Amino acid sequence: MFEKVLIANRGEIALRIHRACREMGIATVAVHSTADADAMHVRLADESVCIGPPQPAKSYLNMAAILSAATITGADAIHPGVGFLSENADFAAMVEEHGYVFIGPSPEHIALMGDKVRAKEAARELGIPVVPGSDGAVEGEAQARKVAEQVGFPLLIKAAAGGGGRGMKVALHEGELMQAYSMARAEAKAAFGNDQVYMERYLGQPRHIEMQILADGQGGVVHLGERDCSMQRRHQKLLEEAPSPALNAAERARIGEIALKAMHRLGYRSAGTLEFLYENGEFFFIEMNTRLQVEHPISEAITGIDLVREQIRVAAGATLDIRQEDIKINGHAIECRLNAEDPTTFAPSPGLVTDYHQAGGLGVRVDSHLYAGYRVPPYYDSLVAKLIVHGNTRNECLMRLRRALEEMVIDGIATTTPLHQKLISQPDFIDGNYDIHWLERWMKQQAEG
Amino acid sequence: MFEKVLIANRGEIALRIHRACREMGIATVAVHSTADADAMHVRLADESVCIGPPQPAKSYLNMAAILSAATITGADAIHPGVGFLSENADFAAMVEEHGYVFIGPSPEHIALMGDKVRAKEAARELGIPVVPGSDGAVEGEAQARKVAEQVGFPLLIKAAAGGGGRGMKVALHEGELMQAYSMARAEAKAAFGNDQVYMERYLGQPRHIEMQILADGQGGVVHLGERDCSMQRRHQKLLEEAPSPALNAAERARIGEIALKAMHRLGYRSAGTLEFLYENGEFFFIEMNTRLQVEHPISEAITGIDLVREQIRVAAGATLDIRQEDIKINGHAIECRLNAEDPTTFAPSPGLVTDYHQAGGLGVRVDSHLYAGYRVPPYYDSLVAKLIVHGNTRNECLMRLRRALEEMVIDGIATTTPLHQKLISQPDFIDGNYDIHWLERWMKQQAEG
Repeated sequence: MFEKVLIANRGEIALRIHRACREMGIATVAVHSTADADAMHVRLADESVCIGPPQPAKSYLNMAAILSAATITGADAIHPGVGFLSENADFAAMVEEHGYVFIGPSPEHIALMGDKVRAKEAARELGIPVVPGSDGAVEGEAQARKVAEQVGFPLLIKAAAGGGGRGMKVALHEGELMQAYSMARAEAKAAFGNDQVYMERYLGQPRHIEMQILADGQGGVVHLGERDCSMQRRHQKLLEEAPSPALNAAERARIGEIALKAMHRLGYRSAGTLEFLYENGEFFFIEMNTRLQVEHPISEAITGIDLVREQIRVAAGATLDIRQEDIKINGHAIECRLNAEDPTTFAPSPGLVTDYHQAGGLGVRVDSHLYAGYRVPPYYDSLVAKLIVHGNTRNECLMRLRRALEEMVIDGIATTTPLHQKLISQPDFIDGNYDIHWLERWMKQQAEG
Repeated sequence: MFEKVLIANRGEIALRIHRACREMGIATVAVHSTADADAMHVRLADESVCIGPPQPAKSYLNMAAILSAATITGADAIHPGVGFLSENADFAAMVEEHGYVFIGPSPEHIALMGDKVRAKEAARELGIPVVPGSDGAVEGEAQARKVAEQVGFPLLIKAAAGGGGRGMKVALHEGELMQAYSMARAEAKAAFGNDQVYMERYLGQPRHIEMQILADGQGGVVHLGERDCSMQRRHQKLLEEAPSPALNAAERARIGEIALKAMHRLGYRSAGTLEFLYENGEFFFIEMNTRLQVEHPISEAITGIDLVREQIRVAAGATLDIRQEDIKINGHAIECRLNAEDPTTFAPSPGLVTDYHQAGGLGVRVDSHLYAGYRVPPYYDSLVAKLIVHGNTRNECLMRLRRALEEMVIDGIATTTPLHQKLISQPDFIDGNYDIHWLERWMKQQAEG
């Protein structure tokens, strides 16, 4: 096992990794920008190294400075955390070339999944379902009918040269196909001077479902069930839950099987996430994240597995000692991302935290680098605390979340806590009845009064 | 279900009960002395009533004031918490006579178990093992031999009129019996003018093992496994763990069976605890606590059962919806009682909490009524925070506890945190090798340098 791990990140995720190391008897090295000298992860780490000025490009993205810090402190391994260099294949390769262990997947897998076109091809080859569609432009009505038969309805017809919704038509059923096809072509011609159109399955109200994977690269692969991250604003997740209230047991088993087989074939190592759009019982691959995710604690809550510990173990060459059949999904978990933002306008709200008090009691976990007297710097991601609650049922979990949100005190800065309090009281959320567009629709309604 | 519950207690346990009520959608009424007007449980409750001056006898033990508070606020039920009136049969009876539900067992069971002599008799009748011994004075050598044969060795011979170790002798085996018997009688005669002696099994290095019971009084009884509370100073528990590192599976199953059968026969209702001394595979009844216990969260951690919720449900007339076969012991949990005391002298340390920060992250639960700016009053129990950690194995749990203790910040007052930090690094503790006298022996060694 490693003796010393350098944590190439900041904020709550740096603290998360520090905690896992501490619990494994591994010494920790914090790196930090000048803006983060007083940060919690720096205070708690065994050693710390300043790697540059506040601007991320000059500190947390500064590969040379991070590698120098590893050399100076004699670290064995580097954990990249979430964001920053965590999905940078060059960094992973550079870490290994310098003789350190990169706590994550191979640079090849990071590169493969980082390229959206190659990732989609790879997914198809690995047996992961992707959104069905025409492989190129659809030339003429006969081909349109043929493609429609393969792809199924509802269908989206979109301009090859398009963007912004122009040259985009939906055919809900076969009766609408020809009209939609010719209208899309005409619009495309008018807008872009090019009437080429593609066709693919139209997803009107999909959910975002993702599968948490853990693999040792030596034949051991498990999944920790799915997370539902449909509660999004501008593609940013606000609240996540596991299991998904939308999936039934058969769907859950099916996507689990698909994920396991694919990761076996890929020979993947470390933690990773397969992200899907889900609608009417079907899953469609979006992308694979080759790193830990912000919302990983909800999977930890329902499985009892410490994902960061496993990442570290596997990176050190250990094999997984968990088998799929031993993983039992236990109850329900929800995470709220408490951001230092105005809960209405989402304007960033950095500044001095004058008072801070964490919710406590049964079934409550808080991952946060805040403390009273800490100044949230304006340079980084606005996530300041994750409130994770676990209960035996979804309803118990919701009730617990409600009371835990009441208990959280973050004074001096605005946070999204009031938004979460409002959100979890909405009948649609209580019923588990929401898709990836729900939050924006609801916010629009709120704004319109 | 109840609409409003009055919590007749203070401190972390009042907060614990408030949280359970909130999560069940039940409104809460806090009662408080004038010294506790700013307490956390008062701040969070829906309503609060001042019931008297700081002295417990005039507030938290003031039955009339508490009942008046229930009347004024229109509460349906009263939860007595831990300590104060929680094992007062008269209070339980009075609550019911006034038309409120007492969230606890029947007054009869409280009274029975509150009388040590009747409790021991009841235990014997219920098939619970008690320390074997002579039923009265042992008159002469022939009876001494007969009793010894029934009771077994090692044997304790003690003066009927005795106390403080005088007239007390141990016979480790039969060869020592006669000499010990006559010496004990002679000492008793010299010390108390009365040479009557009793005999009972001698327990040299027992552990304190207790079984958590939950029953609905309608035929439903389960146990949540055992807790090991051997880490004690002057009969005060400092740290508890579950499961016990001393028990094997057969012993665990045996004491579980005994507890279930006994509670069935008794017709017990609510949460309760059977406390035992344990030595060499044998259990000996000490007493039954007919209430929630401070250390209940470790049982919650390893079973996933919310004991306070179940207490409330059962008090409202619900039957248990948990069967014994569904209860799986999951991992290991430890609780540290952080007291506002000097960690060396144990002198109380009330006063202003200038800074407060709870440990967080995976597997950590904090139950505490502290907040920065809170003044710990000098009138009550010194318990100010419970740190509960859960891990998949005892070792994982220990490592997690270590890092969580590092993260706890309680500034302005002295607490027992440093003692816990030292304690959990001792090889005997790490090995799970300690009895009820271990802590006092170790502290003596520490004091002697």
